[in-house]
Amino acid sequence: MSDSITPLVPAEGWHVMHLYYSIDQSQWSLLSESEKREAKTELSQLVQEIRSHPKTQLLVFAVATPKADLGFMLLTPDLQDATHFEKRLTLALGPDVLTPTYSYLSQTERSEYTTTSEQYAQDTLIGEKGLTEGSPEFNEALAEFDERMKHYLQHRLYPVLPDWPAICFYPMSKRRSPHDDYNWYSLDHEARARLMKGHATTGRKYAGKILQLITGSTGLDEHEWGVTLLAKDTMEIKNIVYEMRFDEVSARFAEFGDFYIGMQLPLNELFKRICL
Amino acid sequence: MSDSITPLVPAEGWHVMHLYYSIDQSQWSLLSESEKREAKTELSQLVQEIRSHPKTQLLVFAVATPKADLGFMLLTPDLQDATHFEKRLTLALGPDVLTPTYSYLSQTERSEYTTTSEQYAQDTLIGEKGLTEGSPEFNEALAEFDERMKHYLQHRLYPVLPDWPAICFYPMSKRRSPHDDYNWYSLDHEARARLMKGHATTGRKYAGKILQLITGSTGLDEHEWGVTLLAKDTMEIKNIVYEMRFDEVSARFAEFGDFYIGMQLPLNELFKRICL
Amino acid sequence: MSDSITPLVPAEGWHVMHLYYSIDQSQWSLLSESEKREAKTELSQLVQEIRSHPKTQLLVFAVATPKADLGFMLLTPDLQDATHFEKRLTLALGPDVLTPTYSYLSQTERSEYTTTSEQYAQDTLIGEKGLTEGSPEFNEALAEFDERMKHYLQHRLYPVLPDWPAICFYPMSKRRSPHDDYNWYSLDHEARARLMKGHATTGRKYAGKILQLITGSTGLDEHEWGVTLLAKDTMEIKNIVYEMRFDEVSARFAEFGDFYIGMQLPLNELFKRICL
Amino acid sequence: MSDSITPLVPAEGWHVMHLYYSIDQSQWSLLSESEKREAKTELSQLVQEIRSHPKTQLLVFAVATPKADLGFMLLTPDLQDATHFEKRLTLALGPDVLTPTYSYLSQTERSEYTTTSEQYAQDTLIGEKGLTEGSPEFNEALAEFDERMKHYLQHRLYPVLPDWPAICFYPMSKRRSPHDDYNWYSLDHEARARLMKGHATTGRKYAGKILQLITGSTGLDEHEWGVTLLAKDTMEIKNIVYEMRFDEVSARFAEFGDFYIGMQLPLNELFKRICL
Amino acid sequence: MSDSITPLVPAEGWHVMHLYYSIDQSQWSLLSESEKREAKTELSQLVQEIRSHPKTQLLVFAVATPKADLGFMLLTPDLQDATHFEKRLTLALGPDVLTPTYSYLSQTERSEYTTTSEQYAQDTLIGEKGLTEGSPEFNEALAEFDERMKHYLQHRLYPVLPDWPAICFYPMSKRRSPHDDYNWYSLDHEARARLMKGHATTGRKYAGKILQLITGSTGLDEHEWGVTLLAKDTMEIKNIVYEMRFDEVSARFAEFGDFYIGMQLPLNELFKRICL
Repeated sequence: MSDSITPLVPAEGWHVMHLYYSIDQSQWSLLSESEKREAKTELSQLVQEIRSHPKTQLLVFAVATPKADLGFMLLTPDLQDATHFEKRLTLALGPDVLTPTYSYLSQTERSEYTTTSEQYAQDTLIGEKGLTEGSPEFNEALAEFDERMKHYLQHRLYPVLPDWPAICFYPMSKRRSPHDDYNWYSLDHEARARLMKGHATTGRKYAGKILQLITGSTGLDEHEWGVTLLAKDTMEIKNIVYEMRFDEVSARFAEFGDFYIGMQLPLNELFKRICL
Repeated sequence: MSDSITPLVPAEGWHVMHLYYSIDQSQWSLLSESEKREAKTELSQLVQEIRSHPKTQLLVFAVATPKADLGFMLLTPDLQDATHFEKRLTLALGPDVLTPTYSYLSQTERSEYTTTSEQYAQDTLIGEKGLTEGSPEFNEALAEFDERMKHYLQHRLYPVLPDWPAICFYPMSKRRSPHDDYNWYSLDHEARARLMKGHATTGRKYAGKILQLITGSTGLDEHEWGVTLLAKDTMEIKNIVYEMRFDEVSARFAEFGDFYIGMQLPLNELFKRICL
Repeated sequence: MSDSITPLVPAEGWHVMHLYYSIDQSQWSLLSESEKREAKTELSQLVQEIRSHPKTQLLVFAVATPKADLGFMLLTPDLQDATHFEKRLTLALGPDVLTPTYSYLSQTERSEYTTTSEQYAQDTLIGEKGLTEGSPEFNEALAEFDERMKHYLQHRLYPVLPDWPAICFYPMSKRRSPHDDYNWYSLDHEARARLMKGHATTGRKYAGKILQLITGSTGLDEHEWGVTLLAKDTMEIKNIVYEMRFDEVSARFAEFGDFYIGMQLPLNELFKRICL
Repeated sequence: MSDSITPLVPAEGWHVMHLYYSIDQSQWSLLSESEKREAKTELSQLVQEIRSHPKTQLLVFAVATPKADLGFMLLTPDLQDATHFEKRLTLALGPDVLTPTYSYLSQTERSEYTTTSEQYAQDTLIGEKGLTEGSPEFNEALAEFDERMKHYLQHRLYPVLPDWPAICFYPMSKRRSPHDDYNWYSLDHEARARLMKGHATTGRKYAGKILQLITGSTGLDEHEWGVTLLAKDTMEIKNIVYEMRFDEVSARFAEFGDFYIGMQLPLNELFKRICL
Repeated sequence: MSDSITPLVPAEGWHVMHLYYSIDQSQWSLLSESEKREAKTELSQLVQEIRSHPKTQLLVFAVATPKADLGFMLLTPDLQDATHFEKRLTLALGPDVLTPTYSYLSQTERSEYTTTSEQYAQDTLIGEKGLTEGSPEFNEALAEFDERMKHYLQHRLYPVLPDWPAICFYPMSKRRSPHDDYNWYSLDHEARARLMKGHATTGRKYAGKILQLITGSTGLDEHEWGVTLLAKDTMEIKNIVYEMRFDEVSARFAEFGDFYIGMQLPLNELFKRICL
């Protein structure tokens, strides 16, 4: 990127863009077979280029129902890069072929409700397990916890996303309803942390079946968070979202945007799927 | 489907897609008579192909009012197949002829509020009817109930849809209003089961006149459920939806999307109906 | 209609479609003068054909403001016919000339809040007027009432719509607000009947000036009812809708869609009005 | 207008149409210089023709921001005329050049909250000023009041709009919120009159700086009233609307649509402004 | 500007327009290389012309996600100029290339909640710091405060915007919810001033990292204020908006529109970024 451009890299974490397009099959049909081949090659090469950019991931998927045909999820540190990749992806099949139908900008971020080392030592090790502070068992358990949290934080800020076939995205916000019991932002941190903890418990039941990534978008896009679920099975997606709806934090405080279901596919299979 | 594609088949039930299109008559008018014949043949053959796919149903209908002209309801286990069929249906009359106007993705699912064998034995057979547990009458009645429930579950998960002429679709959600008495997801299971039971009673009055299929879409599409009503008469559709609106579960907790009315027709009649 | 098509005729009443279109003047301008004449003739002949279909009425009107240019209101028993007429009307001026901007599907229906013969005898004749049951005055008054109700019901189910110049349409629903005092569907029948009676009283003040037709659309389209007002004067339309807004039933329980104002015109005048 | 057309002239007042268009510059660019000149001449002549129609005013203005480019405000008694003028204005620059982006239909109307002669005599002259009924001072003051009210009513029903440069339009409704203290239509006339009086007091502070015209649209268009503000300065528009928002009648009961800001210009300047 | 045009310059402050466009790449691709060069030169020259207009600033930026490609923020005293610049910017790349996707009109304005000289003397200098009125320390501190406030007011009314890379815009309103505790416009000035003060405290924590400009739009556009944030880092944008959401004034009273993230770039870099 040119020297005259100031990078926009967050102090921690990456920028994340979700991009959804429909194919203008009428424009596509105007291309000759060799032009179509070229167009597909150009998109394939751009996908390669983006994937080989440092610290950058690009998921590519077919989208279910005519809400969209093709989707991308792009993770990269610098918003300057992200925007340029996005504009080029939109054009890669030719100037009129991809019509944007939905998009979302967010950033990976740490959770403010994560249990701290101090809380864990006090509440769990000393309080629940009756360990003595500084004892070998205590030290070992705390080191283990710290290691787990480090991995967890690493996944929140710098996730490595697997190629599981099903990908669900939806944006959400916390309510500020004109009713004191339904206004998330009027709650104190402790109350919010307690509510989030119940939610996390539900999430953990799906470990190994659902990989969930929460990214922040307050000030960046229409809602306050984006939620990406990777799964091996759409039924698990339905189950986790449904089950979480009964968690108090969702039942009282969550507002959801629309849901998009995609299928990660190798590019050659993707082209067949969406009739290119 | 290629070996490099992981099937997305739910552990139980099928994927369901509702697809609504309007005809771009201007594009259609550009085709020659023989091109039109070919296009109609291609759609007809695709409909045949989909209908002969294992465990797959495809309903085809004309849609009332210019909200849409043509509608499909597709039921098939694997979302990979469903998406490919959907993209091909969109294109079958030519690249510009069908414009998607509405769609919905859901899955058949069991109801969590079904009376269990144990509840029925305790509440109805022993409680209401005064039968002795393990007595021949008790055993027979319970076996009958189990058989009925098996059929009911079979219909929920693997429905066989008749060719009744009228088809109504609407999506719906349960409210999480910022008011404790209007928040479905804050109710406990027992309260929800009681409310759903009243609803089912209304539904049973229309047995033989209305076939109702509830499919789940939490996490899959904009609302939480899709409702498909097949009927021999649109007045019955109006009556059942109106009557159910007074059930407490609808009056207090239901949010409805838009309603789409279609007419199942043989393809040759359908083409005439929508002026192809 | 072909024998392979099952009619969709309600047990009582007719189907009603409101159709609104804007003219694509750019497409229209591409036609030669003789093509324009032909297109107008085709629409005129179709209007004639529909109007001569049994039990069928078709109102044709110019629409005020660019919300739409041309409107139709179609009343006919069979939804199969209604849909076919609708698709043909959309195409009658050529494949690209009429663009649908709004539509509504409903059915004529009896009111569930009409005073019954028994109620009238008890409350009005015996209660208010002090007549003796079975007396000649009583019998005559009751026969008169029954005759009036028969006519009223006939108008609700099988209305004959006059060619009054102004036509207003709007859809509406009754609220199910998350507040017990604003939830129509939680009220019992008696409370609803009382509220509707006040509304009817307002309506009767406009007898001869406004002809009002309420048609049901729960399960058929986005709202629960369609309201068509025929008038000789738009000021009366404004007055009745405004006055009714203060009736408790509207003030607390009504949700309104958008309002469309049209002018019934002979076809030759209509063509001039909308610059065809 | 043809004899076969029934005029639609309100018993008092005029019809009012607000019309907003964007220019399709791509279509415009296809015209030759002489075609462009002709198109502008045609629009200019139509504006002249409409302005010379009896009892008819037409304001023409450029619109700020790409919400629209060109706006008209049309006041004329007969809705038949208004609609025909509107369809012709839409076409005057050629069939594809003006794309409608927003419109609003309303009628001039008297306020139901105006102080009556009797109220003024009783409350102000006798009550506040201590005058004796029938005394010369009383009679003179009452005659003055009646004259003032006559002018006020004249302005409400038959306004003469000045060519002040700034024109603001927005539609509004009074709330029927599901909460007893926020439901305008559940208030009695006295309470409403009191609230409106406070509002009028704010309005009078802007006399000479803002000319405000309230027109009624219940039953005619999406909201219940249209508000047109003519001003010499957009800051005054911002100030009056902001200040009125604190009046109880707005703070509790007003719902606003979007706001459109235009600039009245001579046609030749207007064409330059919007790059025709 | 022509003499026949009345300037629309507010008594204090400037007009502000935010303009967002997407590129119609299909139209762009129809241009030859030299036409593209010319088009870019024309836009560059117009940007120069606007920037050299007295008291006028024009920020130019690429926009993240397909919500838009190109954005402008224009500050200039006269709305007549602003509108003409806006229409010309829309056309500068050719008649079809820039499609407006969002825009916002507002004015710079003073805050009504700024601490006055008198309040500061009384509350802070005499009250908190215990200074004696008229003492040298008092006088010096007050003069310092007055100077600071003068600068602050200057920035609110006549801001000089830096070329920081990230620019965020969102519109917002204060709630008038049908609930007494959530209705901003029913609060008295003191209560509002107290709530705004808490908000300002949060804002000051980001001094040097975020430059915030609040502009007023009541009566001018859809919301009541526009908020422009200039930053060196998008993470700071996310942080400030998120943190402020917990301020009581946001938690209870703020309604937000959508958020737009742009990157200020030199024009040659901008053209590359958006693939022109």
